[in-house]
Amino acid sequence: MSTPIPTAPATITPAALADALRQLREHTPLVQCLTNIVVAQWTANVLLAAGAAPAMVDNPEEAGGFAQFASGVLVNTGTPYRETYEAMRVAARSAQEAGTPWVLDPVAAGGLPVRTAFAVEVLEHRPTIIRGNASEISGLSGGAGGRGADSTASPEEVLDLAQELARTHGCVVAVSGAVDHITDGEQVVRISNGDAIMTRVTGVGCSLGGLMAGFAGVVEPLLAASAATALMTVAADKAMETAKGPGTFAVALLDQLELTTPEELAERVRL
Amino acid sequence: MSTPIPTAPATITPAALADALRQLREHTPLVQCLTNIVVAQWTANVLLAAGAAPAMVDNPEEAGGFAQFASGVLVNTGTPYRETYEAMRVAARSAQEAGTPWVLDPVAAGGLPVRTAFAVEVLEHRPTIIRGNASEISGLSGGAGGRGADSTASPEEVLDLAQELARTHGCVVAVSGAVDHITDGEQVVRISNGDAIMTRVTGVGCSLGGLMAGFAGVVEPLLAASAATALMTVAADKAMETAKGPGTFAVALLDQLELTTPEELAERVRL
Amino acid sequence: MSTPIPTAPATITPAALADALRQLREHTPLVQCLTNIVVAQWTANVLLAAGAAPAMVDNPEEAGGFAQFASGVLVNTGTPYRETYEAMRVAARSAQEAGTPWVLDPVAAGGLPVRTAFAVEVLEHRPTIIRGNASEISGLSGGAGGRGADSTASPEEVLDLAQELARTHGCVVAVSGAVDHITDGEQVVRISNGDAIMTRVTGVGCSLGGLMAGFAGVVEPLLAASAATALMTVAADKAMETAKGPGTFAVALLDQLELTTPEELAERVRL
Repeated sequence: MSTPIPTAPATITPAALADALRQLREHTPLVQCLTNIVVAQWTANVLLAAGAAPAMVDNPEEAGGFAQFASGVLVNTGTPYRETYEAMRVAARSAQEAGTPWVLDPVAAGGLPVRTAFAVEVLEHRPTIIRGNASEISGLSGGAGGRGADSTASPEEVLDLAQELARTHGCVVAVSGAVDHITDGEQVVRISNGDAIMTRVTGVGCSLGGLMAGFAGVVEPLLAASAATALMTVAADKAMETAKGPGTFAVALLDQLELTTPEELAERVRL
Repeated sequence: MSTPIPTAPATITPAALADALRQLREHTPLVQCLTNIVVAQWTANVLLAAGAAPAMVDNPEEAGGFAQFASGVLVNTGTPYRETYEAMRVAARSAQEAGTPWVLDPVAAGGLPVRTAFAVEVLEHRPTIIRGNASEISGLSGGAGGRGADSTASPEEVLDLAQELARTHGCVVAVSGAVDHITDGEQVVRISNGDAIMTRVTGVGCSLGGLMAGFAGVVEPLLAASAATALMTVAADKAMETAKGPGTFAVALLDQLELTTPEELAERVRL
Repeated sequence: MSTPIPTAPATITPAALADALRQLREHTPLVQCLTNIVVAQWTANVLLAAGAAPAMVDNPEEAGGFAQFASGVLVNTGTPYRETYEAMRVAARSAQEAGTPWVLDPVAAGGLPVRTAFAVEVLEHRPTIIRGNASEISGLSGGAGGRGADSTASPEEVLDLAQELARTHGCVVAVSGAVDHITDGEQVVRISNGDAIMTRVTGVGCSLGGLMAGFAGVVEPLLAASAATALMTVAADKAMETAKGPGTFAVALLDQLELTTPEELAERVRL
């Protein structure tokens, strides 16, 4: 497959990213998270630090009603159980019906059959944003996937698949990696902030999906996915200035998610 | 509704709070926690740092037997599943029968119908302490509640409801907020330590419920709820002296829960 | 019961431990964790910091298939639910059939009847390593156990039981405590690094089980259990140099799990 060289979108500028962060902090979007037991605490803390309001409503009885009035919904398949799948189906359907933006994070898609089938199934509810690493995006597109949450491929290598996925489902696809790639099927945003240490703290990618759901509650999807990525990776760059290892990095990252101003975001982001 | 101005209880003094902390550390109460997937780790770490022994026994087969010999039990409805509800019912009943003090933390009561009904249902097992923010206390009393774990009201505004709840169920009600209010239906303890950053770290309130269950294993309920609140908020004040953001605050808070001495508690608490 | 004084194994030397750590970092073993909701995040972060790749695949539909190609599997009974038990049974059986090394951490065995019965039951799938504190090892052997995750006994006191357990099931038994004892039923490795503060951070022991599963994917079981213990306790010694309390200790421990070199491990370990 050959891809025409995508033009840089005129709408995703440092100033637009800064403004998205201002919107987030002004409106404190309510983010419903249906996520895994490993990263639930971390995801809540990331959202709180950034300026959103997390709500982990992930049971089948309450998930649908909550998705109607949440600002955004995250569906993450990290540790799926029978009841969680039920809740995720209900939340995705309800979000679609109510027009609530929702993010699908198909953790380990391609590598594990049951959750891959689930992720493909809920695509019918038209996620606003799909977020994953290169292996997961490949796996969701019918490829081989990785060996768990790892990725052995780079975002560049799966850009064709990501664009096709975005066009087919009318959504934004965000692929994490050394250079994050975010596409709506036409335009491609590339963000090259961040550090490899982010892959040695569990849940950084998962919580990025939560941030995208928060931003999607206040700005349009391509900008939302880009602003979330910019905030996370710029905060990571700042955290690296004091971190000694993955423990101090994670703590500093939470600090910097709160301390990073819209102006700093615009100044430091590398588009 | 009008409330007579409640008299400050003569029993809740800085010296009494300090002595409660001495009791906690001397007896290392065993605290059974049935809590949510978001804050389970944090709650265990808070209890360990303060000087209690957490045990997360939250399955229906073991929860009842454990509640008979635990020092205190926490029931928190943050992420309830079918099996968790079952375990919580069993634990609450068993705690009541065995005379084990237990704490109900009705997370998001009022805002979410299923868990609100559950929280109202288990009131029949006579919790020793009910802990929540103003919205949750209002929701448990039949009011509207908030939009998740947030609170949009202040403890002062729901003091009447809290006192009525305490009198109706013969328990202590603790309402978290800028000034924490704790009442047994007659007397009201107000504690004005703490900082707004506590609401930007997930689980600080939830873990306070765990601390109350621990203190309730060693001193009487009004003192228990007050001592737990005093310890958490004084430790938070101390943590603020070095914190740069929510990440470093959370870490320093755990340190200070261990480092705060009974003498410091008595000196710094603002009743 | 009398035990002949066990000879120090000639194979477990500081140089061998250092080499095991080199192997771990070179091969990045994939560690499937079926563990509890309290320590899942911490366990993942410990494995990532040390140099392994965690994958929390703990549902019955995917656990068996994953155990066939994982480098090692951890089964930890901290917060068992019906679906988790199912997944653990499937994973243990599959690991046995595929020859994947697996670690059993029988949290609170002896103290709680249902999980004790489960832990005894899965012994039929021949764990490669059993890891616990003295009470849990005693409980798994039919003794009384402790009051939750605590231990009231010392590893020395249960060494006879540990050796018998190892001989009966053809596995390595690792008993955590002030001096860790690790035995294959014949030889006994004693490691006296570490600090009591490790018991005031939840999940340090649980994550040690995960580390053992990782090392067991790259070296033989007695060396694997010893290297994991040495790495955790030497990193703890280094973390203590800057820690002010349990919060900063936990953060520094993650840093030191990454920063500790094979050479430092060999130099600092006290066999």
